[in-house]
Amino acid sequence: MKEYNVVGHSVRRLDAVEKATGTAGFTSDMKLPGMLYAKVLRSPYAHARILSIDTSEAEKLPGVKAVATHKNTPRELFNTSATMTFTVPPMVPVLDQYIFDNVVRYVGDEVAAVAAVTEKIAEAALKLIKVEYELLPAVFDPLEAMTPEAPVIHESHKKNIPGGEVIQIPYGDAEKGFAESDLIIEKTFKVPVQKQAQMETQAAVAQVGLDGKITVWSTTQTPHPTKMILAKIFSVPESKIRVLNPPYIGGGFGVRIGLSAKAEPIAVALSMLAKKPVKIVYTRKEDFIASDTRHAGYVTVKLGAKKDGAFHAMYLKAILNGGAYCSFSCETPGVLGCMGMAVYRIPNQFYYGHSVYTNTTPSGAMRGFGNPQAMYPIESVVDMMAEQLGMDPLELRLKNIMQVGDPWPLPYKCSSTGLAECIAKGARSIGWEKRGKLNKPGAKKLRGIGMGVGTHCSNAWPWCGDYDNAYITVQQDGSIHLATGVPDMGTGTSTSLPQIAAEVMGVGLDKVSITFADSASTPFTIGSHASRTLYAAGTAVVEAARDARKQVLEYAGEFLKVAPERLELKDSVIYVTGQAVGNDCSGSGVCQTGESERKSISLKELAYNAHLRNKQFIGVGRIVPDNAPPWHAHFAEVEVDTELGQIRVIKVAAVHDVGKAVNPMIVEGQIEGGVLMGIGYALSEEIKYDEKGKQLHDSFHKYMLATADDTPEIDVMIVESNDPTGPFGAKGVGETGLVPTAAAIANAVYDATGIRFTEIPLTEERVFRALAENRK
Amino acid sequence: MKEYNVVGHSVRRLDAVEKATGTAGFTSDMKLPGMLYAKVLRSPYAHARILSIDTSEAEKLPGVKAVATHKNTPRELFNTSATMTFTVPPMVPVLDQYIFDNVVRYVGDEVAAVAAVTEKIAEAALKLIKVEYELLPAVFDPLEAMTPEAPVIHESHKKNIPGGEVIQIPYGDAEKGFAESDLIIEKTFKVPVQKQAQMETQAAVAQVGLDGKITVWSTTQTPHPTKMILAKIFSVPESKIRVLNPPYIGGGFGVRIGLSAKAEPIAVALSMLAKKPVKIVYTRKEDFIASDTRHAGYVTVKLGAKKDGAFHAMYLKAILNGGAYCSFSCETPGVLGCMGMAVYRIPNQFYYGHSVYTNTTPSGAMRGFGNPQAMYPIESVVDMMAEQLGMDPLELRLKNIMQVGDPWPLPYKCSSTGLAECIAKGARSIGWEKRGKLNKPGAKKLRGIGMGVGTHCSNAWPWCGDYDNAYITVQQDGSIHLATGVPDMGTGTSTSLPQIAAEVMGVGLDKVSITFADSASTPFTIGSHASRTLYAAGTAVVEAARDARKQVLEYAGEFLKVAPERLELKDSVIYVTGQAVGNDCSGSGVCQTGESERKSISLKELAYNAHLRNKQFIGVGRIVPDNAPPWHAHFAEVEVDTELGQIRVIKVAAVHDVGKAVNPMIVEGQIEGGVLMGIGYALSEEIKYDEKGKQLHDSFHKYMLATADDTPEIDVMIVESNDPTGPFGAKGVGETGLVPTAAAIANAVYDATGIRFTEIPLTEERVFRALAENRK
Repeated sequence: MKEYNVVGHSVRRLDAVEKATGTAGFTSDMKLPGMLYAKVLRSPYAHARILSIDTSEAEKLPGVKAVATHKNTPRELFNTSATMTFTVPPMVPVLDQYIFDNVVRYVGDEVAAVAAVTEKIAEAALKLIKVEYELLPAVFDPLEAMTPEAPVIHESHKKNIPGGEVIQIPYGDAEKGFAESDLIIEKTFKVPVQKQAQMETQAAVAQVGLDGKITVWSTTQTPHPTKMILAKIFSVPESKIRVLNPPYIGGGFGVRIGLSAKAEPIAVALSMLAKKPVKIVYTRKEDFIASDTRHAGYVTVKLGAKKDGAFHAMYLKAILNGGAYCSFSCETPGVLGCMGMAVYRIPNQFYYGHSVYTNTTPSGAMRGFGNPQAMYPIESVVDMMAEQLGMDPLELRLKNIMQVGDPWPLPYKCSSTGLAECIAKGARSIGWEKRGKLNKPGAKKLRGIGMGVGTHCSNAWPWCGDYDNAYITVQQDGSIHLATGVPDMGTGTSTSLPQIAAEVMGVGLDKVSITFADSASTPFTIGSHASRTLYAAGTAVVEAARDARKQVLEYAGEFLKVAPERLELKDSVIYVTGQAVGNDCSGSGVCQTGESERKSISLKELAYNAHLRNKQFIGVGRIVPDNAPPWHAHFAEVEVDTELGQIRVIKVAAVHDVGKAVNPMIVEGQIEGGVLMGIGYALSEEIKYDEKGKQLHDSFHKYMLATADDTPEIDVMIVESNDPTGPFGAKGVGETGLVPTAAAIANAVYDATGIRFTEIPLTEERVFRALAENRK
Repeated sequence: MKEYNVVGHSVRRLDAVEKATGTAGFTSDMKLPGMLYAKVLRSPYAHARILSIDTSEAEKLPGVKAVATHKNTPRELFNTSATMTFTVPPMVPVLDQYIFDNVVRYVGDEVAAVAAVTEKIAEAALKLIKVEYELLPAVFDPLEAMTPEAPVIHESHKKNIPGGEVIQIPYGDAEKGFAESDLIIEKTFKVPVQKQAQMETQAAVAQVGLDGKITVWSTTQTPHPTKMILAKIFSVPESKIRVLNPPYIGGGFGVRIGLSAKAEPIAVALSMLAKKPVKIVYTRKEDFIASDTRHAGYVTVKLGAKKDGAFHAMYLKAILNGGAYCSFSCETPGVLGCMGMAVYRIPNQFYYGHSVYTNTTPSGAMRGFGNPQAMYPIESVVDMMAEQLGMDPLELRLKNIMQVGDPWPLPYKCSSTGLAECIAKGARSIGWEKRGKLNKPGAKKLRGIGMGVGTHCSNAWPWCGDYDNAYITVQQDGSIHLATGVPDMGTGTSTSLPQIAAEVMGVGLDKVSITFADSASTPFTIGSHASRTLYAAGTAVVEAARDARKQVLEYAGEFLKVAPERLELKDSVIYVTGQAVGNDCSGSGVCQTGESERKSISLKELAYNAHLRNKQFIGVGRIVPDNAPPWHAHFAEVEVDTELGQIRVIKVAAVHDVGKAVNPMIVEGQIEGGVLMGIGYALSEEIKYDEKGKQLHDSFHKYMLATADDTPEIDVMIVESNDPTGPFGAKGVGETGLVPTAAAIANAVYDATGIRFTEIPLTEERVFRALAENRK
């Protein structure tokens, strides 16, 4: 394998000291001169019409500078997610909400907002706003919402299906496939509402200049698309809006691909009214009730296999709860289907899926983006199939997993896979051979081992448009400046992208700096999501660096009087290699005669020499990414306390084919974090609603995140299949850590207890009831 | 003349409302969390060695966070001016100072600095620093400083000449020229120390991140070169330093081409010591005593003419007072000579000039950059010559002024001149025919009319390197974002550069935004100075816009199925023009068949169409400017009160060939401001030193700026010669307003009084004495 100087090394993150010491800048830390603080009045009802709203008392409160309602803010329909900026025809983005509307559609929906000189005054003012509601019937379950008698949540979406969009993906002939199958298993699973629970709540600071320019610092994962959304809402040219992170954001996990809930437009609207900068920071409760969640829903898997274990047909169906407004409710079922269909070589498949409006908190993007909802059911059914076939589930998977060159339903190729190696390594780590032999008869604590596998994408195409751009400038001392519009939401991209730039430019990482996540300092990118940042934005960085490097070598060729092809750039020095043959001609046909006596020049000297000759090396990278599948096999060992119903995860072996780990330490961190999120998804995390649509789990005291206490031994292993399409062979890794985790745990619980759970999370209550039922 | 849609129109400045309402951001307004305030201890002596310095008491004062001296700050020699970053070999920049040294060389020189939680505490701490000085002999006049017995101010510059650099420019054969002349006049003039008196004093805020990145917001006119200077001083890669304006600066006039005096390095040094952001804002007194001034000095003009009035030989000599440290002391005499030699067609010339170190405040760049020091003497001597020849001074000038294509001593061509038109228009405005006929016999108030002409450069080459770069991105809605590293120091470039971008891109100005003056968001530029911003940075903007426009038209060509050459982009719409001939082939050889039915597409639709096809139009402009001479004729009418010695300027007619006025209102403002500065230079502005080297005019109460009260009627007229090298024909205008003003006034005073003054400013005292002397 090729050895690199910077890429592939676990260098310490460039933001490590700043973050560890609390000096790194976040939106919630920001303070501008004259800045006001905003608070939002939210609906107490799941569905209601606002008959009247009286803000006069609130406006009179000393210190209140602006009150915004549906009466004095733009009536431009939008979608809080970036989907409205990069949905590619024939798909059409669903635009179904205003900053404030005269109908509220879930408990927490925005009714009004106040900007005041202190947060306390703003809060006090909220209580002075008088709203008269007419209650409307509400619905909370997607299946119920599809019935004819269900209330219509959006007038222009009659069947409660956002945009009326039902995704159907035929591949081969599923019907024929099932007819030809020897064994068929069908099962429907219920998956819960999970919350991103990112560290920093949704936040924005807006400054509307008197010159008409709008600057928004926010927690968005997508400064450029967010700029586009705001331009649409407020009817101003995009060039007049600057959106940036300041420069960090405290996590994302998909919760702010586009707007940070409605933090940005509320801050801008209030800033326009008050003519002062306005800051809004959601409370944790607001973040829970009024900020996208993972889609819950019902997923059906019907799998047909031949006697020898060869999968022959699959039918996959997903009905997802989209909540009150459409965020990524069209894309999520799309990715769910595509990813579910891409893991195994199944010649005959059919996928059917869509979201449904309900009067609950809107569902949107969350790490994995539909894929965990697909893989928990699929991998459960694969285990059931193995049992029916009498085969080892590991062997059954090995027999069926996708191979390089295999046809599949996706429009890009499967150009690399290390999944077999992932399975082998994970099995060794967990001790797969112990499976089924862990428990003594009569034991009250039962152990089990299970596995799950999966794939994912490395960027957003083909579900939406995806492209990226970057600038590289060689500074006058040969150091390198990189500008890219993607944020670093804690994933370390502000370290790994400079690593890529350093490697291509042949300099040490200490010579590279980065400007990121600022729409005014960088060319367009769709942002950080879809496991794309390193893969797609990284490819733009490679291209920009190659462009700059080419200019450097051409200039060095003139300086050293050799063809640029003979030059090597390493450790910030350009060396002449090889021998001249006759006149040394460059590719451009420029010939150098009379080779220089110098055989090398430092990049520092060359850059300054060029500077004195009026030249800076400026590289521009413009790329449209391909796509590539990362692969992963998770193995879990669990212990089930049969008296309490409590499940403890003992160990997870998480083996990931990431193509190439540009910074292995960062990759390991991503996978570990994903595994923990997957454990929460499997065992404890769920938002439920009461009968009036109020969240029952709207705080960290009520919503059971997996914490340090719940963390098992996690054996992260990296497999590098060097994908030909990724930068240095890299593929996406940001989301993969939780794709097969719940499946592996559920299969381990089955191994321990013999109970096949079709609903997660496997809470104590649910497990206790099932064990009791089982004992009957 | 070609009519443009945006260029050539007096649109209101984009920063007008922000500045008028006080909401525009300046360095002095900045406040960062945890920010400390710095104060500087300055030398009370003109020349002394620091024997010891004890900061222990200061450090103990509660609230003091860092004390910096020569002992704990970098010992890296530098030059506060940007000259150290773009001096082109064989010239070598003079590096002669440290942040703090153990020798002080003028009253005000930096001894130590304190960072504390309040300004008051920092000030109090200064008083607790104990310094023991050994006094050294000092010298204040440049001629004295050149004598063998003068004290040596810098050990490595033995003759007190910075870098030992004496500039000699031979052109033709001056000696022979004088021998062939019929009339020779020689006169030596003394020119004063003038102060830029920009509105915002020198200021910087430095933030040294724990990750090693350094961010400096400051009043610099040159973010990129300032970044280079700081990188050198602190031995860090340039890419790790970001220098930016926030985003405005309150004037410049040359006083911060490079560092803002020492504000930036002092703030960075203290921030490194204190590990907190540090802000330093010079008091007005500090700005006077420790911030560059215009070079004072002695200028000799010897002019030889033929009987018919044809100038035949000129000898020009300038000995300038460089002050205690070299800022632009090598370049200023260079420009003085070049500009003085470029106005008239004189076949035989010789220039000799240099600066001299003295123990006074360092001299540096100031608007006009040596040119006013040349033209007051030269234009005085031209008037004397006219008198001797018995010719009208206007006719004498018209006979001798440079014409397009004439040979001259400069390495670029005189490619345009509207000077004859300027003279004609100015003469008409002032009523030139009244000259000599304004006064009744015995009048106590005498009126006179005088004129002066001049030229200037439009960028910094050939006195140093000059190049520029810019980015243009077409936003997804067809609006335009421009990124350029040049500041807007109040000259309106953040309006006029967008005008250029709008014109090339075929959109309205309301669609264009600009990021400027930020080294991390923009490619390299040498900054705002040398009357270059519109001419050189503007050319980079044109190139970037052309690049983006080309991409737009190529894409539109594919969309509309016509050759890009047939497309016109106007008012944000792309139109098909002309007829297809056979297959429609673009220059690139790509042929389009089957013309589209559509004959136009808006840039908005096209940009979004491209976006959905994964493409942003990104233009990069990389330019090395030519150079071009702006021309100007000033006519002044003055009234001299012979009893008081008071001079009142009644009217100035200022006619300027600016090539093309991109924004006439801004151009007029530049010229008006320049005229007022020129009136101050002629009549009242001067810094003098007492016998110990202390400034006698270190505040606005003592230093007599020309104010609103002194403002005469100013008739600004613009002549447009459309220079072939400038953007839309534009040439420099930032500095020209004061080049011939003092000459015109001095000549008018001569017309009124018959007294030829060889020293300015023409203060009441000086004029009163001369009138008294004259009466004897």
